[in-house]
Amino acid sequence: MQTIRLVLVGLGNLGRRLCEVLEDKEALLQQRYGLAVRLVGAADSRGSAYTPDGLDLRQVAQLKREGGSIADYPQVGRHGWAATALVAEAEADVLLEASPVNLEQGAEPALTCIRTAMNRGMHVITPNKGPLVVAHRELHALARSHGVQFRYDGTVAGGLPAINMGCRDMRAATIRRLEAVPNLTTGLMMDLLAEGLSWEEAIAQARAIGTLEGDGAWDLEGWDAVAKLVILANAVLNFPARMEDVIRTSIVGMDPAQLQAARLRGERYRLLALAEQDPDHPEMYRLSVTPTALSADHPLGTLGSKQMGVVFHTDIYGTITAIIDEPEPIPSAATMLRDLLDIYVSSDR
Amino acid sequence: MQTIRLVLVGLGNLGRRLCEVLEDKEALLQQRYGLAVRLVGAADSRGSAYTPDGLDLRQVAQLKREGGSIADYPQVGRHGWAATALVAEAEADVLLEASPVNLEQGAEPALTCIRTAMNRGMHVITPNKGPLVVAHRELHALARSHGVQFRYDGTVAGGLPAINMGCRDMRAATIRRLEAVPNLTTGLMMDLLAEGLSWEEAIAQARAIGTLEGDGAWDLEGWDAVAKLVILANAVLNFPARMEDVIRTSIVGMDPAQLQAARLRGERYRLLALAEQDPDHPEMYRLSVTPTALSADHPLGTLGSKQMGVVFHTDIYGTITAIIDEPEPIPSAATMLRDLLDIYVSSDR
Repeated sequence: MQTIRLVLVGLGNLGRRLCEVLEDKEALLQQRYGLAVRLVGAADSRGSAYTPDGLDLRQVAQLKREGGSIADYPQVGRHGWAATALVAEAEADVLLEASPVNLEQGAEPALTCIRTAMNRGMHVITPNKGPLVVAHRELHALARSHGVQFRYDGTVAGGLPAINMGCRDMRAATIRRLEAVPNLTTGLMMDLLAEGLSWEEAIAQARAIGTLEGDGAWDLEGWDAVAKLVILANAVLNFPARMEDVIRTSIVGMDPAQLQAARLRGERYRLLALAEQDPDHPEMYRLSVTPTALSADHPLGTLGSKQMGVVFHTDIYGTITAIIDEPEPIPSAATMLRDLLDIYVSSDR
Repeated sequence: MQTIRLVLVGLGNLGRRLCEVLEDKEALLQQRYGLAVRLVGAADSRGSAYTPDGLDLRQVAQLKREGGSIADYPQVGRHGWAATALVAEAEADVLLEASPVNLEQGAEPALTCIRTAMNRGMHVITPNKGPLVVAHRELHALARSHGVQFRYDGTVAGGLPAINMGCRDMRAATIRRLEAVPNLTTGLMMDLLAEGLSWEEAIAQARAIGTLEGDGAWDLEGWDAVAKLVILANAVLNFPARMEDVIRTSIVGMDPAQLQAARLRGERYRLLALAEQDPDHPEMYRLSVTPTALSADHPLGTLGSKQMGVVFHTDIYGTITAIIDEPEPIPSAATMLRDLLDIYVSSDR
């Protein structure tokens, strides 16, 4: 039995649900893979807790469900103990960085947590797009120089293994065109508008469902899809794109009549993230995020409001489409477990 | 630069196309992965050729395109030199076993080639279902005992990474239900019958397109789909199924009126391979291969005649569907290259 010591930074929905998944899967991980997972440290915005003996996953999840802080964890919780300090001090094998995207602050403190963990010889797993958008190559180089792994399959399209498929299963291929519908909120909004709701009604409904968070600008203006496309471009296409390289069209202000007309034609609008190989410079890609009417025979043309997908158009593997139906948000959290097993389970098991 | 020495057994369409892909990708493999691939030996049904300096990939492919035998390869080709003898004598790192399914002969000589290669410390890659259907567990155990890898991503659904996704990206999940449409011939036949062709006309057209080979019984009676489901069950579900455990329904003798009526309802028939977890015995699965009318909102309900797909219904990763559009047969051959890179390229690259 191998014990893996984890530090988890970020205990919002993603982090809390991961605790629940890890607890549910404890016996299976031991039986199937001979792995015992121990959460030795955790941090939220109010403080941290650390104990080499391991925190109780159920208790951590319950604290967070009840609106508390990990700083309130009995005995070992401390208010004001920052995540960066925890990562600098904890003895652990893996950092799970699950805090929300925070590009206004240069992806901090996630970026510092990740750098610190790598410098201390820890593997890093993150579903947080921020650090990848800001420092993709730097973080990969840092991981390599310390002989640790850096995994982020959860950054794009929730539980869909889009990065994994793109990096591993497309090896040796030339990807001529990559299409993705990686954002749920915009798809739902455009569906609601096509059904005849006003913009305000659609916003209210998306918020009630829980799909829309905050003021929604990150999703609705296309920034979320842009960030995901930038990560796909760097990871899968080996193309060093930045946010500003993506031609972005917001769905804010779209004419509902346009959406309704598309529906009558049997088409469905989705915010399509697209990378197209430049025919004159095969190492270059043109990147865009655009509300696009997809016909039913497009590989992503029948996506429902809880579905995301990606299409790889390749030279030697044909055209491969992968779609996830994510009726609840658990798959996005579970990607961290997938990444963990990618590190610790040999590739032919 | 690392040199990988390959022995290729089977130079039908799959083996020949692999030679073409390897030649096309030679520069890319060196630049992207630092790998030089050298085909030191090859065998077909008439003989073998071997040289430590490497055979010329272009010349091998051309020999086969012109209907010749590898035994005619200048200087180093020998008529009557059996594949089993080649594998027993060649100094190589990897056996690529690409001969056709031959269950009448107990999957021989492929099975002997694979065992011999593993015993001699070679990794084994095969898109041949025969050895896996006959000896899945034995071959995995043998590979483990010799510290070599055994990969067969090309056995199911052509170039679709169905095995890879199921084994790696579904780790830690419980797969409650697995659906696959892994056979092209039956889908094409049912489409043609639904369009109004007679059975004889449909057979003739499928043969003219090149989809139907031999008498077609292996495909049309569902054996091909059964074999693929057995491989998925063993590899992905960890369920030790055999061919006789699958409830099989042939498409031979189907009433065209039934197919035409489905089309009028907006449904499409496909030969569906299905594994369903037994609610009373979660480690058990019920396996079947059945012509099934799929509605357009089924994840595999819009597959065209060149498309195959698989659906994983899981507990923690939602429902994940993967579909390949394989307009030409190259992807099936390229899976051997994918498997090769899975062995030689570290999992975080």
